[in-house]
Amino acid sequence: MLDPALLRPGRFDRRVFVDLPDVKGREEILRIHVRKNEIKLSPDVDLPVIARGTPSFSGAELENLLNESALIAVRRDKNSVEMADIEEARDKVRWGRELKSRTVPVVDKRRTAYHEAGHALVTTLLTEVDPLHKVSIIPRGRAMGATLMLPKSDEFMLSRSKILQIITSLLAGRTAEKLMLGDISTGAQNDIERTTELARRMVCEWGMSDRLGPINFASESLVPGFEELGRSTNYSDRTAEIIDEEVNRIVLECQEHCSRLIKDNREMLVAIAEKLIEKETLSAEDVGEIIERESSRRGLDTPPMNIHLRQKSESETPLPSDPFKA
Amino acid sequence: MLDPALLRPGRFDRRVFVDLPDVKGREEILRIHVRKNEIKLSPDVDLPVIARGTPSFSGAELENLLNESALIAVRRDKNSVEMADIEEARDKVRWGRELKSRTVPVVDKRRTAYHEAGHALVTTLLTEVDPLHKVSIIPRGRAMGATLMLPKSDEFMLSRSKILQIITSLLAGRTAEKLMLGDISTGAQNDIERTTELARRMVCEWGMSDRLGPINFASESLVPGFEELGRSTNYSDRTAEIIDEEVNRIVLECQEHCSRLIKDNREMLVAIAEKLIEKETLSAEDVGEIIERESSRRGLDTPPMNIHLRQKSESETPLPSDPFKA
Amino acid sequence: MLDPALLRPGRFDRRVFVDLPDVKGREEILRIHVRKNEIKLSPDVDLPVIARGTPSFSGAELENLLNESALIAVRRDKNSVEMADIEEARDKVRWGRELKSRTVPVVDKRRTAYHEAGHALVTTLLTEVDPLHKVSIIPRGRAMGATLMLPKSDEFMLSRSKILQIITSLLAGRTAEKLMLGDISTGAQNDIERTTELARRMVCEWGMSDRLGPINFASESLVPGFEELGRSTNYSDRTAEIIDEEVNRIVLECQEHCSRLIKDNREMLVAIAEKLIEKETLSAEDVGEIIERESSRRGLDTPPMNIHLRQKSESETPLPSDPFKA
Amino acid sequence: MLDPALLRPGRFDRRVFVDLPDVKGREEILRIHVRKNEIKLSPDVDLPVIARGTPSFSGAELENLLNESALIAVRRDKNSVEMADIEEARDKVRWGRELKSRTVPVVDKRRTAYHEAGHALVTTLLTEVDPLHKVSIIPRGRAMGATLMLPKSDEFMLSRSKILQIITSLLAGRTAEKLMLGDISTGAQNDIERTTELARRMVCEWGMSDRLGPINFASESLVPGFEELGRSTNYSDRTAEIIDEEVNRIVLECQEHCSRLIKDNREMLVAIAEKLIEKETLSAEDVGEIIERESSRRGLDTPPMNIHLRQKSESETPLPSDPFKA
Amino acid sequence: MLDPALLRPGRFDRRVFVDLPDVKGREEILRIHVRKNEIKLSPDVDLPVIARGTPSFSGAELENLLNESALIAVRRDKNSVEMADIEEARDKVRWGRELKSRTVPVVDKRRTAYHEAGHALVTTLLTEVDPLHKVSIIPRGRAMGATLMLPKSDEFMLSRSKILQIITSLLAGRTAEKLMLGDISTGAQNDIERTTELARRMVCEWGMSDRLGPINFASESLVPGFEELGRSTNYSDRTAEIIDEEVNRIVLECQEHCSRLIKDNREMLVAIAEKLIEKETLSAEDVGEIIERESSRRGLDTPPMNIHLRQKSESETPLPSDPFKA
Amino acid sequence: MLDPALLRPGRFDRRVFVDLPDVKGREEILRIHVRKNEIKLSPDVDLPVIARGTPSFSGAELENLLNESALIAVRRDKNSVEMADIEEARDKVRWGRELKSRTVPVVDKRRTAYHEAGHALVTTLLTEVDPLHKVSIIPRGRAMGATLMLPKSDEFMLSRSKILQIITSLLAGRTAEKLMLGDISTGAQNDIERTTELARRMVCEWGMSDRLGPINFASESLVPGFEELGRSTNYSDRTAEIIDEEVNRIVLECQEHCSRLIKDNREMLVAIAEKLIEKETLSAEDVGEIIERESSRRGLDTPPMNIHLRQKSESETPLPSDPFKA
Repeated sequence: MLDPALLRPGRFDRRVFVDLPDVKGREEILRIHVRKNEIKLSPDVDLPVIARGTPSFSGAELENLLNESALIAVRRDKNSVEMADIEEARDKVRWGRELKSRTVPVVDKRRTAYHEAGHALVTTLLTEVDPLHKVSIIPRGRAMGATLMLPKSDEFMLSRSKILQIITSLLAGRTAEKLMLGDISTGAQNDIERTTELARRMVCEWGMSDRLGPINFASESLVPGFEELGRSTNYSDRTAEIIDEEVNRIVLECQEHCSRLIKDNREMLVAIAEKLIEKETLSAEDVGEIIERESSRRGLDTPPMNIHLRQKSESETPLPSDPFKA
Repeated sequence: MLDPALLRPGRFDRRVFVDLPDVKGREEILRIHVRKNEIKLSPDVDLPVIARGTPSFSGAELENLLNESALIAVRRDKNSVEMADIEEARDKVRWGRELKSRTVPVVDKRRTAYHEAGHALVTTLLTEVDPLHKVSIIPRGRAMGATLMLPKSDEFMLSRSKILQIITSLLAGRTAEKLMLGDISTGAQNDIERTTELARRMVCEWGMSDRLGPINFASESLVPGFEELGRSTNYSDRTAEIIDEEVNRIVLECQEHCSRLIKDNREMLVAIAEKLIEKETLSAEDVGEIIERESSRRGLDTPPMNIHLRQKSESETPLPSDPFKA
Repeated sequence: MLDPALLRPGRFDRRVFVDLPDVKGREEILRIHVRKNEIKLSPDVDLPVIARGTPSFSGAELENLLNESALIAVRRDKNSVEMADIEEARDKVRWGRELKSRTVPVVDKRRTAYHEAGHALVTTLLTEVDPLHKVSIIPRGRAMGATLMLPKSDEFMLSRSKILQIITSLLAGRTAEKLMLGDISTGAQNDIERTTELARRMVCEWGMSDRLGPINFASESLVPGFEELGRSTNYSDRTAEIIDEEVNRIVLECQEHCSRLIKDNREMLVAIAEKLIEKETLSAEDVGEIIERESSRRGLDTPPMNIHLRQKSESETPLPSDPFKA
Repeated sequence: MLDPALLRPGRFDRRVFVDLPDVKGREEILRIHVRKNEIKLSPDVDLPVIARGTPSFSGAELENLLNESALIAVRRDKNSVEMADIEEARDKVRWGRELKSRTVPVVDKRRTAYHEAGHALVTTLLTEVDPLHKVSIIPRGRAMGATLMLPKSDEFMLSRSKILQIITSLLAGRTAEKLMLGDISTGAQNDIERTTELARRMVCEWGMSDRLGPINFASESLVPGFEELGRSTNYSDRTAEIIDEEVNRIVLECQEHCSRLIKDNREMLVAIAEKLIEKETLSAEDVGEIIERESSRRGLDTPPMNIHLRQKSESETPLPSDPFKA
Repeated sequence: MLDPALLRPGRFDRRVFVDLPDVKGREEILRIHVRKNEIKLSPDVDLPVIARGTPSFSGAELENLLNESALIAVRRDKNSVEMADIEEARDKVRWGRELKSRTVPVVDKRRTAYHEAGHALVTTLLTEVDPLHKVSIIPRGRAMGATLMLPKSDEFMLSRSKILQIITSLLAGRTAEKLMLGDISTGAQNDIERTTELARRMVCEWGMSDRLGPINFASESLVPGFEELGRSTNYSDRTAEIIDEEVNRIVLECQEHCSRLIKDNREMLVAIAEKLIEKETLSAEDVGEIIERESSRRGLDTPPMNIHLRQKSESETPLPSDPFKA
Repeated sequence: MLDPALLRPGRFDRRVFVDLPDVKGREEILRIHVRKNEIKLSPDVDLPVIARGTPSFSGAELENLLNESALIAVRRDKNSVEMADIEEARDKVRWGRELKSRTVPVVDKRRTAYHEAGHALVTTLLTEVDPLHKVSIIPRGRAMGATLMLPKSDEFMLSRSKILQIITSLLAGRTAEKLMLGDISTGAQNDIERTTELARRMVCEWGMSDRLGPINFASESLVPGFEELGRSTNYSDRTAEIIDEEVNRIVLECQEHCSRLIKDNREMLVAIAEKLIEKETLSAEDVGEIIERESSRRGLDTPPMNIHLRQKSESETPLPSDPFKA
């Protein structure tokens, strides 16, 4: 709801809104670059699929993606760019270069495998988070491993139930370590930071705590438009206490959900982790097969799986009900 | 009440007061620009009506408005500027360009439609807020949709009862999501920020909490005249607690009022939302027709509606009584 | 009491004390400028009266005042400057230009009239505040209306009882809105800010709370001599609580006094407000006549009135007793 | 006690210690300037007495003092500089120029007379504060009046009992206003600031509260050596509360002492104040005579008086016992 | 788990990730420098062992290491660089130059010997901390002595149980002073700082307090990416209290564990400390022999020892169970 | 204990460690300067003794010391530099120039004598603080008097028991004033600052409060390495309260110890103070003789005395037991 009459005089929104291209825009940009740079594409390349798989890419990043793909294809002695080359280029552009040569101690490798297997399994069993793309224990940048997801579509808003599932999947690495290895590690630091940020914003910015209501508790940044430079709170310490309690309640509920999912599917987790130690990288399909196999071994139906299948054209799914709703 | 003897020596008010033209001034400015730039107007153009519909426009913005209108008319192959061209130009100048080509997922489109329908319905049913102009789920800038209102006249002060109605209408998007879709989303973040700012200023700057009285609780900005650079409070934590309780009380009362309005008019909300999904943009008259039709279908009188009707010359209405007064 | 031995070494008072002329100095300055610029004065001009009516004017402002007066006289096709021209010039220099052409909605005009009538009535009924000069609902600068007072003499210190009366008169606009229109508005924001500043300084700087005693609670400004750049308190939260309670007590007592005065003289308030809506500006004499008329209509004696009568030479009045003293 | 081993490495005391001349040094400096500038002194001039009466004067200020004296003597058509000329010059250099022409309203003059009479009386009745030099209600700089004291000797440290007496005399202006005029005013603001600073330093820097002990509670200035730029406390809010209570206790005890002194000598206060209204300035001897006269009128012995007698050579007096000691 | 969709717009991670070489990379770098600078190595030099013993060395530091080794060998009149030369060079590059000539009082030497013996003994008795390399009471830089450990391998994450053992070994110097000399000293300041940092990060960043859960309590640095410039907490004082209690609990548990280990092996500690006073530096093997001898003297088996044995190729050991787990 | 693996990446220790020469280094530096500048030394000069008496002197300060000594010898018309000249030069370099000409009032002189006598007596009666060198009431810089101590040896760490004795001796000036003169003064401000700093660091940095344990409570300076620019605490207000209580407990215990020592040796204190008033400066031997004489007068053995005897070669004494240990 836009109502300029309420804007305080003198206030100025310094945040520049950079209009990133949407899925149609990206497809068009890709076509233009292919033509302009005379990139020879293999017949298996499907530009609409690539456009769908590159949300939040700018025009420059899309051009960079095609150039990287061409270099990879050349390095692989191909005379046209194939779908696999573009996928590899995208993963590198998006998540950083793989550091295959890094020597990782056996103990750390095993811990990383269980940590990432936790993320991969729980992501797959939840219905609203972005679908699993692949999982790997090859280090990238500062990360020891990575569980990669690809959004089904451009994302403009997050529902409360989706945020709760994201938190649940963020806690899965740490929970897998604890349940399967009997101890936790510093490796979950980044997951914990993101969990906390989401839970705090639910309570303080998105009105998602019934106890506190639709009130903003973080509105005064020291420099407007640059929240990153710190904020000064204008609420009482009693309110700060309730905020802490609400954040704690949300995170603990998600943690319990996560523990339950992992305990109920312990064999799948072990299977994924051990396969990761063996192969280092698993595709969403690989994970899907493990889950199917383990399900049938236990005489159960395969659960609905939230994985990113390469060529399939997903249809929009309706909003699922919130598993945490009281 | 002006009393310079009380101004502390050395204090200097750095806020520059920019004298924006009032309704008569705007009409005069429009006439001057039409003449100066030799813009050919269609006979249906009514400059006093445009002047009334452009409060807080500066002289430069009015000139820009006429130029934009001329460009739109040319693009539409007309040889004179019509009222419709000026209206489109104004909406663009005021709220940003429509992003018609942006691909929005079906789920998000539906959520946006119910959110905006909530704002549109509640705005129409309240008597003191600025009247509805149109409602749309075509994205503009960072917004997924917009409910546009046009002030009846230049505004110099806000009564307590009008502020409570503004808060009520700000909460309507979120309430519609919750009641009709069973979940809320991050899409209400800006509504919550503005709700909080209004409720805090009622309590802290405008003396509208009987419990705290006509006392200012935000008087010390770090740099005077630039409240945006942060404030240092000089009150106790106990007072901060009472402020939080008062803000909470105000917001919850408005939320309850909002929920009641939406529950009592659930069919109208659905009708507006579904029509929005179909048409993407509804004028105030379209919304009025839906409400009339739904009222008569339920055997009820049409309620009084607060909508901006294009050509009609509104007379000033007296201040309504405050629906929240104890 | 001056005792340099107590000044801490290294401390330096950066506040520059600008020696403004006192009443005798102003008269002399006016005479010099009249002579120097060969301004032709009408016989009705009384320079000592003007000197008395321009406290805190600097030499430059006095010169500016005479020049403005001459321009006004020329615009009015007079061949000498009359007392009325000088008065108009002074009001413009002191409170800003009147914005007669601004279109104000009827609702806002009525609210402003009752707000300013409240200030005018209560100022007139109190004995120690600066006497009423005139009251107007013609906007000046950012203000919707103004109640103007002229000090009887240069002011060097404020007694506790005078400060309490100033607060009482500051609250009168808001109280009139509430009692007569049934609702309050954002129009009292500046009155509330000044009320709060006075009440806080009574408690924190002037030792006027018996509960807290003659102790300064605001002595550490971040940059000495520039209190405007913020302060860091060095007292406990418990003390901050008592300060808040004392400020609250003072303001509520003044508010009660104000409500009583307005309720007891409700007819006078209505008469002043309605006359203001009709005439837009009333002189102190106009207000005095309304009060006299309404008093006699109710069979009462005219109360003592605190109004600035143009030509009369006021004698110093002794300090009145404090109406709030327990 | 100097022990460099305890200084933290890296810490650096940026406060520059300017070695002001002591009494012998000042006498020598005066002699040199008299000779150098060939100032002709009247035989009544006693340079050692002037040296004693100018503690904390720098060499430059002493030279300035002699030059001012010569100018005053010239203006008075004398052909040598007399003691009276030097005294006038010193008062001007030390406390600012008298503003004799400033028009002060009768009410304010009377309030100032009682305020300063309070300081003068209480200073005279106390034994350890610097002796009274003169008292005046002629404005100087921003002050409405002044009670001037001259130290008996250069001062290097303050005993607890002397500080309590200084606070008692600082509160005397305000107490006189309250007891004699029935109301207090903003005129005591500076007295209150200095009272607070002394009481806080007693508690926080000088170990003079038995409850808190010899502990420093203000040791962390934001920029070391520049305490004026603000401090960050490192103690708990509970400690801040005790500090506030101790400061309050000290100030209230002094206030009670002050009230008792004024009530017991009410007639003397009235006599001093009324004489001040009549003469505007009283010397220490004038005040002494009033006290003697009033004492004998009441059939009492003249109390010991702490006044600065011009020519008499004071001998050092032993430290008096502390009147506030429990 | 990497999920770019959650990154807030505008946020930018300024921390530059410098890719230090891993063990394979270091071996290669060493080989290149040996060849490039034509350094003549003795046959006892084993480059893979050096690579393993230089984790977190950059390429430049490795080159520096070889140059220093060559200089040491020259100073020792050798014609090839031996393993001992490289070890000495590494210790100097890593921990600073030994200050053998510094005169240390006997009392301080004895205190340092018991302090370092405490670290050496407890490090040897724990299973997960980095193995002991050598212990010395020859001052290096600002340190009076040093207990040096060499990691078994490159380290990427820390488990909770390893962190608890590190804290236990950090407290061992102070505990040895207290139990054996009856008093503690300022010499443990740095150990205490590192203990506190680890315990706080366990609670606030790594989710290792069950009472507080996987929530980040330090997420808002004043300047993002530069945590060193200070942080502003956004949690309540109640949460700060629980954090303090949790940090306290962790440190006290580790301290108790440490006291128990030292009390149970008091004779070993004395033997190591007295040998240190005699020899000033002990190798890990020296410490191992003392422990073996003391064990056999008391008729006990030698406990498992965590010492860095020079030539032996360690195999990866599995994660030990957590001795502090409830 | 040095363990680089725990250093956080990006953290950088900006404190530069300046390697001051130790006792051997100082002797060598003195010899070099004597030779280089051809300073003729009297046979009584003992360079090793001077080296021992100049801890924390840099090379430049040692050179300055010899030059000053030569100047003093020349001024005294000697043809070689004697031990006494070097001692005078050292005291001037170390503690500032004596201001013999400053006129100090009798009252202040007496207060200073008792204050310094308190420091001198208590320092002499304690066993672990640096031994007394001399005591003086001749002002130096801003200090009214000084009690000078010379370390027995270079100091690298402080034991808890030594710190408690230092605090006890810091409080002795103030305690002597109180017990002997019946009042305290502002003269103890610096002693109180240093007392507080030591007691706070015991509790917050050195782990010397059993109630708070080996935890650092001051680790976050605003700019790392520059603690002087202020700190932000990250602990709760409850912890701040316990810190305040612990600091208070430590200081009060020391104060009681100090009072006991002074009361038990009241006659010695008076004798030292009165001799100081007479002679202005006393050597450690002078103080020792007074104590011996007073002891024998009371029929008691001379207590062990901690004084710096000029020529005697002190042997290292073992650590004394802690007199405050419960």
